[in-house]
Amino acid sequence: MKLYYTPTTCALATHIALEEAGAAYEAVKVDLAGGEQSTPAYLALNPKGRVPALATERGVITEVPAILAFIAQAYPAAGLAPLSDPFAFGLVQAFNAYLASTVHVAHAHSRRASRWSDDPAAQASMKAKVARNMGDCFQLIEKGMPEAPWVQGESYTICDPYLFTISSWLESDGVDIARFPRVAAHFRRVAERPAVRRVLPLHGM
Amino acid sequence: MKLYYTPTTCALATHIALEEAGAAYEAVKVDLAGGEQSTPAYLALNPKGRVPALATERGVITEVPAILAFIAQAYPAAGLAPLSDPFAFGLVQAFNAYLASTVHVAHAHSRRASRWSDDPAAQASMKAKVARNMGDCFQLIEKGMPEAPWVQGESYTICDPYLFTISSWLESDGVDIARFPRVAAHFRRVAERPAVRRVLPLHGM
Repeated sequence: MKLYYTPTTCALATHIALEEAGAAYEAVKVDLAGGEQSTPAYLALNPKGRVPALATERGVITEVPAILAFIAQAYPAAGLAPLSDPFAFGLVQAFNAYLASTVHVAHAHSRRASRWSDDPAAQASMKAKVARNMGDCFQLIEKGMPEAPWVQGESYTICDPYLFTISSWLESDGVDIARFPRVAAHFRRVAERPAVRRVLPLHGM
Repeated sequence: MKLYYTPTTCALATHIALEEAGAAYEAVKVDLAGGEQSTPAYLALNPKGRVPALATERGVITEVPAILAFIAQAYPAAGLAPLSDPFAFGLVQAFNAYLASTVHVAHAHSRRASRWSDDPAAQASMKAKVARNMGDCFQLIEKGMPEAPWVQGESYTICDPYLFTISSWLESDGVDIARFPRVAAHFRRVAERPAVRRVLPLHGM
């Protein structure tokens, strides 16, 4: 398998999950700043022109929540999700879907505001609200965090590298992670895992 | 189970899926226009103050892609997803995650632009780009649609009610569905299913 990724993007979550799963994969860096995602070669792989994309022998899977669930299902021995319990799996998926559809989207209004308006003044206005929105999202996440070490309790799941990834964006979004003690402790805990330590240098972290 | 829904929202997709699955459930209407989602009673159920929310005997699942996958897994006899094939399930999830994180978000910049800016001029600017963004999203979906009747080919899955739901927003977003012949045919095909015909009147359709 090949994971197409760019440092400091949400691809980090999938990169960590592959490493945690013990998967055999190659990490291929995509130069977003240089526009590589818009080349015909990359668009043939992922017509959306985004990262991450996971190329398997059967085809390409995109979208972080989908790739994370695929890794958990394809490597069941790693125990990255409660695969035989639809309700518990639903909670894992609900958490990750919130990160993808609400929290990542809130963050994207800082540097990607041009997706939603061509007017520089409107883009600046969106950027100005990012810290408040990210703060609101993380307040909700903090309230839902268990006392147990991981997002879903005692078991480390595909929620943990995803929350870790988005937590790492808080500082650049103007939000102090210290406002959210459980999220901050979770961030430090994930950062210490051997699989995570192997991946972080490739993401400049 | 109770499905908390509001007509004309993305809850329609989950409502259809429950009906297709033959699930025993009660549909509970939430008055978004009247602010019911911000009442203490509703926030106790779903702290995000959004619809849909699916209350099960073990707890509440939120987020459309998560609820859809839960329904598919909890009612395997309905065959709403390729549950024993992680790659094929990954494609289902990737499609639904794109609808949730990109297409629904593009649409939301019309009536929910205040989430991302408090400036009325910026909100108007976002609204003005919605038709173009929704058109771009559906062009990509159209290119990926198979000749077969359903999103994933010969089998009707949890992708189909979700695409149907978001396709139904195109007209109000200023996009002519006829530009996308396969999507338009798919929309008509889903609308004819008995389970869908039972649900649509509750959504004013």
